[in-house]
Amino acid sequence: MKLSQRVQTCELSPMRKFHPFAVEAQAKGRKIYHLNIGQPDIATPQVYFDAVRNFADPVLEYAESPGVPSYLHAVQAYYARLGAHYDESEILATTGGSEALSIVMQCILDPGSEVLIPEPYYPNYATFIRAACGRVCPIPTSPEEGYHYADRAKIEALIHENTRAIMITNPSNPTGVTLTAEERQMLLDVAREHDIYLICDEVYREFFYNGEGLVTMGALDDPNGNLVIIDSVSKRFSACGARIGCLISKNKALMAEAMKFCQARLSVATLDQVAAAALYTVDQHYFDEMRLEYQRRRDTVMEKLRTIPGVTCRTPDGAFYLMAALPIDDADRFQQWLLTDFEDHGETVMFSPGHSFYATPGNGVNEVRIAYVLKEEDLSRAMDLLALGIKAYQKAIL
Amino acid sequence: MKLSQRVQTCELSPMRKFHPFAVEAQAKGRKIYHLNIGQPDIATPQVYFDAVRNFADPVLEYAESPGVPSYLHAVQAYYARLGAHYDESEILATTGGSEALSIVMQCILDPGSEVLIPEPYYPNYATFIRAACGRVCPIPTSPEEGYHYADRAKIEALIHENTRAIMITNPSNPTGVTLTAEERQMLLDVAREHDIYLICDEVYREFFYNGEGLVTMGALDDPNGNLVIIDSVSKRFSACGARIGCLISKNKALMAEAMKFCQARLSVATLDQVAAAALYTVDQHYFDEMRLEYQRRRDTVMEKLRTIPGVTCRTPDGAFYLMAALPIDDADRFQQWLLTDFEDHGETVMFSPGHSFYATPGNGVNEVRIAYVLKEEDLSRAMDLLALGIKAYQKAIL
Repeated sequence: MKLSQRVQTCELSPMRKFHPFAVEAQAKGRKIYHLNIGQPDIATPQVYFDAVRNFADPVLEYAESPGVPSYLHAVQAYYARLGAHYDESEILATTGGSEALSIVMQCILDPGSEVLIPEPYYPNYATFIRAACGRVCPIPTSPEEGYHYADRAKIEALIHENTRAIMITNPSNPTGVTLTAEERQMLLDVAREHDIYLICDEVYREFFYNGEGLVTMGALDDPNGNLVIIDSVSKRFSACGARIGCLISKNKALMAEAMKFCQARLSVATLDQVAAAALYTVDQHYFDEMRLEYQRRRDTVMEKLRTIPGVTCRTPDGAFYLMAALPIDDADRFQQWLLTDFEDHGETVMFSPGHSFYATPGNGVNEVRIAYVLKEEDLSRAMDLLALGIKAYQKAIL
Repeated sequence: MKLSQRVQTCELSPMRKFHPFAVEAQAKGRKIYHLNIGQPDIATPQVYFDAVRNFADPVLEYAESPGVPSYLHAVQAYYARLGAHYDESEILATTGGSEALSIVMQCILDPGSEVLIPEPYYPNYATFIRAACGRVCPIPTSPEEGYHYADRAKIEALIHENTRAIMITNPSNPTGVTLTAEERQMLLDVAREHDIYLICDEVYREFFYNGEGLVTMGALDDPNGNLVIIDSVSKRFSACGARIGCLISKNKALMAEAMKFCQARLSVATLDQVAAAALYTVDQHYFDEMRLEYQRRRDTVMEKLRTIPGVTCRTPDGAFYLMAALPIDDADRFQQWLLTDFEDHGETVMFSPGHSFYATPGNGVNEVRIAYVLKEEDLSRAMDLLALGIKAYQKAIL
């Protein structure tokens, strides 16, 4: 029995592939500090659980294929407050941001089509692109330049006849890089001039530490419908397990094709959509507190990182991730070693090895992504474990 | 901006594409009897809502990528009771049966690969196959033969080097056809002899009216792992809006590839999985009542259909659908007319036009799929409306 060629080019998630080693380490009694996965520890707002509890229909029916009206309306109103005026018909509910990505790639990519993505990038993008028979064309960056990618000349040099889209995450997972207003406009201009899509994953919008406030590409003038926004309640409301996201675009042709997939999979989970709509009633105070909490966490991580000799990392402005180059040979090998051979007072640490965030072979081998999603004291201890681990590993592999 | 070629070959769902006309008809005060969509009206078991209400974690976290352990265990135990012995690692939780289908097609199809499917078939299969760059190769059947397809010679004549799988639904959506024990074994034998997958969508397992009891292909000996089972809680527990299904196979290579997609989309909704696990504790009595109810509904529909001159339909044995050939020119045109030009005491009826259930151009044009998912008295009235509609339509188009 044959397997598809493209699935064999896809990889397991670098955030999840060390799970079996973690299970073994835990079985040996190890405590693991998880900096490998973007699972926030902030409580999900109570309105979510209240909405679920108050659901009173006796039959849990399919929702409408484009989404539950109350959820679409909540998303529409939220964007309007950010100066992005969408019609509810320009929003499709999806099973997390993941399904929105999968659908848009299926809609726009033919075999051999390319998507420009700044690397390092969220590795699952590559899986969705390959599943849709496309290829990732990386926009190179470096740890020394703080992973800055918004350079018109660099990007335009990579656009050719097979390029269908530029895809970015703002604020970025995994680097925490945020775009300036000029850079946002430039990216849309480039997409317009070359008649390609600009796909913006904005799921980390609320996590910014540069004082700029909430921004969305959707507030820019987009007469041709180049822009596609990917969004989700996962990070915004610490509701990752809801799997509720959306696909937003003024591009009627694209949205008509996307609807075919939405109808084919029938609907998104009903209860979770109803509860996600309720999340959008959460008070601004929730976000202000959350942002300050993550800003403190970022500062804790950066402070510790600066004290580890040989680490390269610029302070990022957004999301709850950062990439750092470590003074080690191979982050995959280092991570496995941390789980199998290292402990300090019975504790160890997990992060995501960097090379899977790159399409260019050999890049990112000594880099890691750190998700700062733990309480400050735990983060502090986790970073100390990283420092101790690096020292011990350097000694062990000599 | 370009759209992918294959998305343009996909179609809107025939079950959902008349929705705008239905909305208009309702705005004019029409009552519509919906026989177009497989949305059961049976109450979802209370244990589902109880499980959701009792969920006490403060953070709604991502679930494990392969699925919540309690859900995987519930599915494993359910299959064991049917004589199908799977390890929990041979089961992956999916967002409905739809995602299971999408994942398996992505895993096994290359551009130009073919999947043999008896036609008429569930139209969304074609979308999942086309999205994965494959093609549907129909196994032809006829209304006169009751849509019987399990004919070894007919099937083997269609297998060639690009054939990757045979895909069936048992009991069938849209025809209600069920397979005998000999036919089930024959299909697996054919798949084994030709080294291709046999994908069995068994989501209607509980809906059988032939006295045979619950059957699964999974109970057959499958040493090479040819078999892939698609399942879901949607119909079994009248929980369509939960979007909880699974992908089951002993094929380790296939399951390893499927895991890449499961990790890429991170997880299936947490609350719905926890609640789906609870559904599997439902008493046998629930299913016995449900089966008898649907059997009465089927009988009501068949009794009425037999009285309409020019209708061809054999009594189906399973699921809650049937296909019928009507004495009309074009079921699409007829359906639209029923919504725009017909009413009897302010009421009209919807079904799914047949041609979208066929890959062969021109086939099924005068056929409809009827989902008997309403109470008997409503079904009876809906069938009377169909009879009246046919008469009036025949007159109107002369």
